[in-house]
Amino acid sequence: MAMSGESVASAARSFGDGEFEARLRRVRATMGERDLAALVVSDPANMYYLSGYDGWSFYVPQALVVTPEGTLPFWIGRPQDANGARLTTNLDEEHIRCYPESYVQSSDHHPVDGLVELLCELGCDSGRVGVEMDAYYFTAASWERLRGGLPRASFSDATLLVSWCRFVKSPAELDLMRQAAKVAARAMATAHEVIKPGVRECEAAARITAAQFEGVDGVAGDYPAIIPLIPSRERTAASHLTWVDRRYTAGDVVNLELSGCVRRYHAPLARTLFLGDPPAVLADLAKVVEEGVGAALEAIRPGATCSAVEAAWRSVLTRHGYRKESRLGYSVGIGYPPDWGEHTASLRQEDTTVLVPGATFHLMAGMWMEDHGFELSETLAVSEDGAEVLTSYPRRLLVGDGG
Amino acid sequence: MAMSGESVASAARSFGDGEFEARLRRVRATMGERDLAALVVSDPANMYYLSGYDGWSFYVPQALVVTPEGTLPFWIGRPQDANGARLTTNLDEEHIRCYPESYVQSSDHHPVDGLVELLCELGCDSGRVGVEMDAYYFTAASWERLRGGLPRASFSDATLLVSWCRFVKSPAELDLMRQAAKVAARAMATAHEVIKPGVRECEAAARITAAQFEGVDGVAGDYPAIIPLIPSRERTAASHLTWVDRRYTAGDVVNLELSGCVRRYHAPLARTLFLGDPPAVLADLAKVVEEGVGAALEAIRPGATCSAVEAAWRSVLTRHGYRKESRLGYSVGIGYPPDWGEHTASLRQEDTTVLVPGATFHLMAGMWMEDHGFELSETLAVSEDGAEVLTSYPRRLLVGDGG
Repeated sequence: MAMSGESVASAARSFGDGEFEARLRRVRATMGERDLAALVVSDPANMYYLSGYDGWSFYVPQALVVTPEGTLPFWIGRPQDANGARLTTNLDEEHIRCYPESYVQSSDHHPVDGLVELLCELGCDSGRVGVEMDAYYFTAASWERLRGGLPRASFSDATLLVSWCRFVKSPAELDLMRQAAKVAARAMATAHEVIKPGVRECEAAARITAAQFEGVDGVAGDYPAIIPLIPSRERTAASHLTWVDRRYTAGDVVNLELSGCVRRYHAPLARTLFLGDPPAVLADLAKVVEEGVGAALEAIRPGATCSAVEAAWRSVLTRHGYRKESRLGYSVGIGYPPDWGEHTASLRQEDTTVLVPGATFHLMAGMWMEDHGFELSETLAVSEDGAEVLTSYPRRLLVGDGG
Repeated sequence: MAMSGESVASAARSFGDGEFEARLRRVRATMGERDLAALVVSDPANMYYLSGYDGWSFYVPQALVVTPEGTLPFWIGRPQDANGARLTTNLDEEHIRCYPESYVQSSDHHPVDGLVELLCELGCDSGRVGVEMDAYYFTAASWERLRGGLPRASFSDATLLVSWCRFVKSPAELDLMRQAAKVAARAMATAHEVIKPGVRECEAAARITAAQFEGVDGVAGDYPAIIPLIPSRERTAASHLTWVDRRYTAGDVVNLELSGCVRRYHAPLARTLFLGDPPAVLADLAKVVEEGVGAALEAIRPGATCSAVEAAWRSVLTRHGYRKESRLGYSVGIGYPPDWGEHTASLRQEDTTVLVPGATFHLMAGMWMEDHGFELSETLAVSEDGAEVLTSYPRRLLVGDGG
């Protein structure tokens, strides 16, 4: 039982070192613009992006520290997760650090004390430290402990610094998202097939998730950052409800939002399924949304803004007398629970981000009305002259067996 | 498609109102001791505990606000999730509030601005406000925004205030955990059956998760707060690695940590499986751990301390020349990603928490050695005169087909 990463080549290693070097270069260039002596990266997606570190350990504080000089970032986490860093990254022993186990969920200590010690050792205790202030898992307590421990440092909010470096995907990343899109289509087909009157919602969730994990074409599925969101009936009027202990019946409307995931890269896909003959109100809404999504996809090209894409969609909606308050979509890629969105560009009126080739979006036309909902989405990459729609499934209201 | 909760009775409603009233009474009693004018609850498990709110919406800021007077807490979240609050809680319209959709992932606004407005409306802007400083999803940015928005308020760290109220489970809660334990046993049996040479790790993950969601005895499984952690070979030396794209081979050691979950209540269970004849080093470790877990279970009774339980385990380990730095377990119950632990009592040397009937623990004997690991765990409830072990699966090193 010797430790060797050979048999289980990590995602980090599959990219080749050049990709990671380029990522770190981009991050360090922005750090230079902002005069940062250190960047503390605690968003698990950003940690994965910069080091390949991949484990379900984000429920305790952990971070990467990137300094302006040097080659590798420093990983710091819990002792029992250090082997996870050894196995999933290319970091050497010098760059894998631990805080004492006794700091975990203790009333006297806090894991961030270990991060403070590392920053002091690196000579960053009197410099400008970038912190992801709005990253999941970087709690208010972590922040107070960090600030209290470094009284001579100054701090700068670097919440989306790394996330914006992730905005344009490399060819290797796009390939993973294409694979994830195939997994999403297979999971959607499974949902379409299994959901029928008499079947339990939990059984549908089981079959859908099994398809997500099994993957396709010999490529293993990874766990998506969000479980399948498959509300039925009146629960479709809310956007994030999970399954309940009931059986589908004829006349059910079922929203299906799910993603394929390959090596942490996501391709979400949403459809709505009706069991039986859809009522006119739903069929009409579906037609409008289909048309609106088509218009938005047509508007996507390098040089266009997020705002312009949303406007194309909205003009269709307005013409038919509908309104949607929430945004039409968001940048997507690497993700860990609780979200697969990158939190950078959004397809909405106020967002003037300019589209560039390699940017990837989940275009999510979710309409949550007072008493029902309808969802239609695609994952796409901005290409040289338009949009490459990565997900592939009939773009319409799905109709199932009404029993 | 009229909105009605009847067909999909929520977990909240299944308990009956008396249970929620008692929970709020306990929380308000502690608020009184700490002189809090308001308590902001953002831990999704605590929100569920106090209101029944249950949705995958914790990826945007949301909270319950509990005031000393009145009956119900206030829910505040995103507009598209308000219907989720209507469907999963007993809150009336007065107590369901939204911040504008345009605050979400915006550079100009922050969802916490809506929370600030609510606290002002409730007259809590100059009082003492309790905040869960170390709760997942209450980020450093949320904290700065809250503090900045309420310059006349004072703040008190209330991180585990509600969590400690959850420490002792009611009979209804224990019943849900017993059901969850049955789901865990079924998922473990599935893992034991499916994992063999030639099978892919992702296929095992698919089958295990399907068993978790399907549930048992007609009770639907809910999604556990953590995916199955099933590292194999050298990856067992790390505690939180997920599956990779490989096939099991003879001689594999596989750690299996998984939970059953019913209506957000968890019963985690861990075992280690060896494919073939286990090497002596693993079999010996297994025997020691089995004996140690037995000693710890014997030590559990009302009036004993967490520290004493850990000591019973440690004395067995020491006698056999082993050491374990990490804690032996932790309080468990309601959970949302990323964790099913309650973060209150830990079974470790420094924790002098006194055990009481109805307290529930995941007693987790995970040994992560330099190049391999071994795990053995049970979920238990402290009973009137000892421990009721809720999980039920052969308590030993599992041996599988070596091909």
